[in-house]
Amino acid sequence: MTKQRNLETLFNPRSVAMIGASAAPRKWGFLIMLNILKAGYRGKFFPVNPKETSILGFPCYPDVASLPEPVDLAIITTPAHSVSVLIDECGRAKIPNIVLVTADFSETGAEGAKLEKEIATKAKGYGINLVGPNTMGIFSAGTNLHALMPMIMPLHGGVSMFSQSGNVGVQMLDYGQQENVGFEKFVSSGNEAVLTIEDYLAFFADDPKTNVILGYIEGVDENSSLIKVAKRVTRKKPVLVMKGGRTATGGKAAASHSGALAGSTAIFRAAFRQAGVIEVSNSQELIDCAKAFSYYPLPKGKRIGIITRGGGWGVLAADACEENGLTVPQLSSELIEKMDKLLPKYWNRKNPIDLVATIAHDPLPECLEMLVKWEEVDAILALGAGFRAYSFQYAEGIEGPQELHDSIRFMKELMTQSLKNPNDTLVKIVELVKETGKPIISVSIGSDYAHKKYSEQYGVVSYPTPERAVRVLRHMAEYSRYLQQEC
Amino acid sequence: MTKQRNLETLFNPRSVAMIGASAAPRKWGFLIMLNILKAGYRGKFFPVNPKETSILGFPCYPDVASLPEPVDLAIITTPAHSVSVLIDECGRAKIPNIVLVTADFSETGAEGAKLEKEIATKAKGYGINLVGPNTMGIFSAGTNLHALMPMIMPLHGGVSMFSQSGNVGVQMLDYGQQENVGFEKFVSSGNEAVLTIEDYLAFFADDPKTNVILGYIEGVDENSSLIKVAKRVTRKKPVLVMKGGRTATGGKAAASHSGALAGSTAIFRAAFRQAGVIEVSNSQELIDCAKAFSYYPLPKGKRIGIITRGGGWGVLAADACEENGLTVPQLSSELIEKMDKLLPKYWNRKNPIDLVATIAHDPLPECLEMLVKWEEVDAILALGAGFRAYSFQYAEGIEGPQELHDSIRFMKELMTQSLKNPNDTLVKIVELVKETGKPIISVSIGSDYAHKKYSEQYGVVSYPTPERAVRVLRHMAEYSRYLQQEC
Repeated sequence: MTKQRNLETLFNPRSVAMIGASAAPRKWGFLIMLNILKAGYRGKFFPVNPKETSILGFPCYPDVASLPEPVDLAIITTPAHSVSVLIDECGRAKIPNIVLVTADFSETGAEGAKLEKEIATKAKGYGINLVGPNTMGIFSAGTNLHALMPMIMPLHGGVSMFSQSGNVGVQMLDYGQQENVGFEKFVSSGNEAVLTIEDYLAFFADDPKTNVILGYIEGVDENSSLIKVAKRVTRKKPVLVMKGGRTATGGKAAASHSGALAGSTAIFRAAFRQAGVIEVSNSQELIDCAKAFSYYPLPKGKRIGIITRGGGWGVLAADACEENGLTVPQLSSELIEKMDKLLPKYWNRKNPIDLVATIAHDPLPECLEMLVKWEEVDAILALGAGFRAYSFQYAEGIEGPQELHDSIRFMKELMTQSLKNPNDTLVKIVELVKETGKPIISVSIGSDYAHKKYSEQYGVVSYPTPERAVRVLRHMAEYSRYLQQEC
Repeated sequence: MTKQRNLETLFNPRSVAMIGASAAPRKWGFLIMLNILKAGYRGKFFPVNPKETSILGFPCYPDVASLPEPVDLAIITTPAHSVSVLIDECGRAKIPNIVLVTADFSETGAEGAKLEKEIATKAKGYGINLVGPNTMGIFSAGTNLHALMPMIMPLHGGVSMFSQSGNVGVQMLDYGQQENVGFEKFVSSGNEAVLTIEDYLAFFADDPKTNVILGYIEGVDENSSLIKVAKRVTRKKPVLVMKGGRTATGGKAAASHSGALAGSTAIFRAAFRQAGVIEVSNSQELIDCAKAFSYYPLPKGKRIGIITRGGGWGVLAADACEENGLTVPQLSSELIEKMDKLLPKYWNRKNPIDLVATIAHDPLPECLEMLVKWEEVDAILALGAGFRAYSFQYAEGIEGPQELHDSIRFMKELMTQSLKNPNDTLVKIVELVKETGKPIISVSIGSDYAHKKYSEQYGVVSYPTPERAVRVLRHMAEYSRYLQQEC
């Protein structure tokens, strides 16, 4: 409990001291400070640097002892050899949290490892929660704390992430922005001299603002309680993990860039599965899953209803379902009878339901409602549920007779009208998800990145291809089944 | 030879007659005509409709016999029962090509199948190249012919595609626009009553404007020469195929929406492999591959050099390489010695080369050049080669002292300057690909869709994640090995 209270002040400190704050624009002590200020951190901020009286308009303090009031967090960017003394200063000033950005510790060899051990022992002695060393920093939406090396502005949302690579972590924050996935807290765990990924995982589990937990893991030491902690956490919240160093080739690369030993992949994989951890196979899948898990409820099972605006797209979705262990149940005669009233006589009467090419009345919203309310399906794939805004392409003038121009203008209006339609459909999807508790995932390709807009503007989870949507549904269904098993 | 000359006038006709042209905006006879005119088709266009005197400003002809001059292509959208007579009229008028959009043939049952057989026999008797029935149409960049049902404007480029689903085909044209993949020719093969996918494949093989061939296949009949034709074609050009109906679930869906029987996946897969056809596993991979195969030369082998701006991203790339059968060779001591002069003393001296976080001088372009010119690698993955334009995020004003504002402005300028850097790097990548004949694939995540801009503006093949890039390299390396084997 104490530890978790401390991590709250780590991520959302009322005040921050920046030890190594700098006025030199190419130093991390300048860039991290600028990121913090630029993002609009909501607490008090104290630069510490004996050589300056003021940086960026903030009065500068010569050392920790001179700080005007107790602070919750110290960020350190000064060289490795200076750190040990600074830990003592922070300990004496009763600073409960440190983010140690400085590198050149265990990742560089025996000498660095010795130094790291020394500062770890000291920090533990003082009861300091120390992140790093060799961390890219932390982020927290609550206080707008962007204590990060790269100049990155993650979207805010319910996803929290720990990462054993700062680089991979910030790529995911950035990718999240592209795919409309917002973050609550992020930590680059660095060399984990004091705080380990188990600590972050346990903290995120109890954090009321975190709905989904992401992790990038390269390795843990043999006494790690990661799996034990994970087993408890996955009962509360989904934990999605990407494992780096899965292969001999990747393992060699991992060993060279951090202190972590890449563990045996087979052992990790089995342990993850037993603990209910969702292992994704690549970075795109991680963000795709983060989106669906944070926007939508879980399906109760693995039975998928598919509705499509064209046959082939449905075929590919059905293939992907079977390849991912999902089922595509045949429609009941009762449901077919109901849909007969909505659809032209030659409709296929099968799941996937093929709406065929139609220009006039759009039967999709009504069919979708019937399908999602059918008790034999747990989740829906709606292929082409939104409609692409083609109209803009008709705006440009071309040569031709007046009637052609009139028709182009007419089509443009028709298309613009039909834009109301996707909006209605998208609003309807969100209502149906709420009403039925079943996820309805949309698939929309388009050069205007429709799938992103759908989530941004309507809260509809959408991907550009059916295969990506199915992969996500697989993970949701598997996690749901895990939760339904006896504890 | 005769057949291939005829397909040239199918895709690039000097003149088109539209049988079933309509003035009613919600009819395909109107929409396809509008698409053709709007796209700016470069030949002569004659609407045929006995009830109208003029449509969209074009004088209308009552029937085929009344056309003022011989035409190369007739597009038919009139109901199924009217088609048989029209084939005779086209045959008598010596029209060599027909695109039969009309549905309600073999895909709807025995009666439709009988009608389809009748028109096929007639068309063959007249020597007519007939596309369809039940086709979404054709596209050709050469004459700007957009004889398509959906209002879609594909980018122009060197990729040609045949598709046994019109729906999947047009989704790929649309997705290509999103990923900067341009098309040369496209055909939705429909029920293949006369022309089959073998015919299109053979034609694309000899088409000098086509560099890469894509195919979506659900099934072929047992006498098909597809594999025999493919074996010849893959010696000349890469053929990338996506198979729909790979599973029992998908197969059932496929059988319901077209006349094609879904063949055994295992047999298809083995035959594809033996014929040098590249089978991709999903639609994203199809377009990802289309991009690299059309932009870049093939690697000579499967040895990958990786250069990265951060460790973890390199680990994931190395993992993906091993999982995809690619190798990541250890650097030679000679190369390490050369790079020692460029990189800080603590650099990792391994492949992946980790450039570590650096704000000052960017060693990437020089390291990249050394790496690609090393004879032990066949292709390069450059992770973070371009630099994301963060600066815009710094343009917004926030509250704070004047010095903070000055610094933000300063950083904005610094970042804008650094934008020259990615451009230089991207220009350099294209030069190095040309000079060495080795593909250099970039990976760039960013909410501004950097990976698309890189190909649009510089011709650099770029993906948002390392895993997607590696998947493409795997297919390139495998195809390259296939070509190196004895014929």
